[in-house]
Amino acid sequence: MTLREVAEKIGGWVDPQHGGLEIHGLASLTDANSGDLAFYGNPKYLSQLRKTCASAVLVSHGFGEQLSAACVWVDQPASAFASLLPLFAPKPIVLQIGIHPTALIGEGVSLGENVSVGAYAILEAGVHIGARTFLGAYSYIGHDSSVGEDSHIHPRVTIRERCTIGARAVIHPGVVIGADGFGFEFREGRQQKIPQTGTVCIDDDVEIGSNSTIDRARFGRTWIQTGVKIDNLVQIGHNCVIGEHSVLCAQVGVSGSTRVGKNVSLAGKVGLNGHIVIGDRAMVGSMSGVGRSIPPDTIYMGAPARPIDKYKKNYSQLQSIHRLYDRVTKLEAENKRPT
Amino acid sequence: MTLREVAEKIGGWVDPQHGGLEIHGLASLTDANSGDLAFYGNPKYLSQLRKTCASAVLVSHGFGEQLSAACVWVDQPASAFASLLPLFAPKPIVLQIGIHPTALIGEGVSLGENVSVGAYAILEAGVHIGARTFLGAYSYIGHDSSVGEDSHIHPRVTIRERCTIGARAVIHPGVVIGADGFGFEFREGRQQKIPQTGTVCIDDDVEIGSNSTIDRARFGRTWIQTGVKIDNLVQIGHNCVIGEHSVLCAQVGVSGSTRVGKNVSLAGKVGLNGHIVIGDRAMVGSMSGVGRSIPPDTIYMGAPARPIDKYKKNYSQLQSIHRLYDRVTKLEAENKRPT
Amino acid sequence: MTLREVAEKIGGWVDPQHGGLEIHGLASLTDANSGDLAFYGNPKYLSQLRKTCASAVLVSHGFGEQLSAACVWVDQPASAFASLLPLFAPKPIVLQIGIHPTALIGEGVSLGENVSVGAYAILEAGVHIGARTFLGAYSYIGHDSSVGEDSHIHPRVTIRERCTIGARAVIHPGVVIGADGFGFEFREGRQQKIPQTGTVCIDDDVEIGSNSTIDRARFGRTWIQTGVKIDNLVQIGHNCVIGEHSVLCAQVGVSGSTRVGKNVSLAGKVGLNGHIVIGDRAMVGSMSGVGRSIPPDTIYMGAPARPIDKYKKNYSQLQSIHRLYDRVTKLEAENKRPT
Repeated sequence: MTLREVAEKIGGWVDPQHGGLEIHGLASLTDANSGDLAFYGNPKYLSQLRKTCASAVLVSHGFGEQLSAACVWVDQPASAFASLLPLFAPKPIVLQIGIHPTALIGEGVSLGENVSVGAYAILEAGVHIGARTFLGAYSYIGHDSSVGEDSHIHPRVTIRERCTIGARAVIHPGVVIGADGFGFEFREGRQQKIPQTGTVCIDDDVEIGSNSTIDRARFGRTWIQTGVKIDNLVQIGHNCVIGEHSVLCAQVGVSGSTRVGKNVSLAGKVGLNGHIVIGDRAMVGSMSGVGRSIPPDTIYMGAPARPIDKYKKNYSQLQSIHRLYDRVTKLEAENKRPT
Repeated sequence: MTLREVAEKIGGWVDPQHGGLEIHGLASLTDANSGDLAFYGNPKYLSQLRKTCASAVLVSHGFGEQLSAACVWVDQPASAFASLLPLFAPKPIVLQIGIHPTALIGEGVSLGENVSVGAYAILEAGVHIGARTFLGAYSYIGHDSSVGEDSHIHPRVTIRERCTIGARAVIHPGVVIGADGFGFEFREGRQQKIPQTGTVCIDDDVEIGSNSTIDRARFGRTWIQTGVKIDNLVQIGHNCVIGEHSVLCAQVGVSGSTRVGKNVSLAGKVGLNGHIVIGDRAMVGSMSGVGRSIPPDTIYMGAPARPIDKYKKNYSQLQSIHRLYDRVTKLEAENKRPT
Repeated sequence: MTLREVAEKIGGWVDPQHGGLEIHGLASLTDANSGDLAFYGNPKYLSQLRKTCASAVLVSHGFGEQLSAACVWVDQPASAFASLLPLFAPKPIVLQIGIHPTALIGEGVSLGENVSVGAYAILEAGVHIGARTFLGAYSYIGHDSSVGEDSHIHPRVTIRERCTIGARAVIHPGVVIGADGFGFEFREGRQQKIPQTGTVCIDDDVEIGSNSTIDRARFGRTWIQTGVKIDNLVQIGHNCVIGEHSVLCAQVGVSGSTRVGKNVSLAGKVGLNGHIVIGDRAMVGSMSGVGRSIPPDTIYMGAPARPIDKYKKNYSQLQSIHRLYDRVTKLEAENKRPT
């Protein structure tokens, strides 16, 4: 595609002398080579821009610096770049459709239209899979569990018995859904297991990242509501509820029976105590540890987590504590002076 | 089951007019629907109680509020509820017994009586499996490793060569036992691998949560002692020892060669430095980072972790540091006043 | 092997009366039994030395204490011990060579000389595997991905489509390479998935620990450079670059688009923010959270992370804050005294 064609697609402007330049791929400023188009959307990356090997760069209208790369001026370089990505994306791989002959399908399994089941997958008795759903290689779907329509279960996902997964789910490799919750009682000198007889219920449009784990409830269900997005290596304890459209970043841990509201955002490595409530639309900063319930529409930070304004004021006073030491030392000296 | 029958089983009292109510399931206050029995064991959940859709609720003897749900008065609602769980639990799924024809059994493998081996499992040469043990689908048991009697290995567990697992183990999906410890030496401009020729030894009655990892020793063994319970996504480094009946919550990390005593409790996301000793019965609060050894019978908290009383006093003084700033400012103003 | 032979191999000295002692194995001071040789390299372990059941112990030249175990005096007990490990290591297990009949090899797959493919492995169409590489049981290699020469892929590794892995890679069980990066945009009341069309590129001599996850790029590549060593349960986000010979300890998390320099060391549980740069040879202490870029050749610590000297001074002042409170109280009392 020529740079002129690129500019047309995104409503941008290019110096006609560069319009014929052939663009072969998209890349970041630092990764780009000759033939690539990059974008410059944030002044923070100016030094990267100046060193880029890209043949062309999307810049915003005000930009006036002379570069070795050709410029395309657009309203919003980042989103213009994003809209180009599908045009340059590699062709999606062609997944094998149909039931692989090595897949083991138990008694009473019901498969919707055009379901695909990958090699070495195991569907235990009583499983139901909705129409057009793709189960990757090595999928393990336990007894009486179900996956809704149009879902994509990547290779090597484990779903134990009696769990329900909704429509349009995307579940990445290594995810474990429905393993026993972690419940023990110390009696007679040892930890005695508390039976975990509940299930996991995952509503529609949920995505779950690689190697994350969602435990089954002690009774009732662990419940992931519609539209929740979960990153890699996240742990969700038994009987938790994660509210609609909430986002949990990598390595988050949610202890048992905690209820996360709707549209909540938990940044990377956040830990939530058990039996607490996180209000709707609350945000928790990365690496924070939340010991108590959080009201809706708040931002919390720190370990233990506090409202962000308190956290920031406190943090800044703690960081400059040496000055307070100095002030006290000075006061002491003044007090010792003979008056 | 009628509510009267429920009350009889737990030694509770129900108003005769509600005795005929049919109970179909157990649920939490927030999850319950018509036909469900819930329990109210903690005043913290009073607002949930008032809004519950349960048909009946277990309450403690003093409770006198009028509810839409029928009440059953008992001594301890939570434990009474727990004792009812088995009665309402779904029938356990029937696991396929015997050796699945797709299981690959290596040379010299010895299987005890009534061992089950799931589909696509692999038992390498020299493996020994104790009587009545169940190996789930895709179990991988490496050369010369063994699993004791009456163990339940869930699908997709990886146990590498020469590891020993005791009796009555419960190992959840995705667990990796016996991968190489993380040991490198920086020589000649690169990280050179230090061979990890030891093993992992897991004693009886151990449970290990989904996707946890336990590395083999550099030499000798990494040792998980009797009755230890490990939650999901926990990392145990090479040559560690975890003492009897200790409990490690989700996302805990234990660095190499650290010795955790007996009956120790590590809360979620705790990190332990390498080459330290955690005394028997010590407890470490969630998200704490332990840099140095901890004496027995102590509670530690924070990063770096300190004894809980010191942690709490220090924490409270740090939280109210703004008041100390104010006091110093006031002193300064006083000192400036002409005397 | 006799103790005399051991002493000769490491250039050590043993009292002739103990020279004939038979050594059957190597072990740590605490793990050792009769017949074992241990080493004592650090005064910190003196109490372990005095209680050891080892038959013999390597000690350094100055050591004069009388022990129940026989002593071998050497220059550096720890490294002398390490050099003995290969002699006492168990014979390496014999892995099955060749293509297992249950392995599924897609169209257009090319295998170098002496490649081994384990049971139930799946190589999708277009995969290339370099000479002498060993793919363990249940390996999943996605369409058009490649693994270089002399690599060892342990059982149950998932590599999705169009990823490249270099030569001499060691990848442990449960690793997931090339799953979708975590990218969503909140539009029209829900989180919309941003396509992740890039790849993962892993250079030569990289080792990756069990159950770690490395996401594919949004576009371009996530790039792990030569010689990088990654421990267990580590998360690497989309479009990250990890520079040559850097070391990432267990449970580290690197957010998207962050660039880690060469020879960087990230201790256990470190979290890195997205879109930052970690300078070459920087070190970050365990459990630290890095919010902003870090210059080369620095040591950072804390959450948020700061240069180690500032961290230490600040930390010490915060720990002794009760004394500052006392000093202020005293000043206040003095000011109230009638002058």
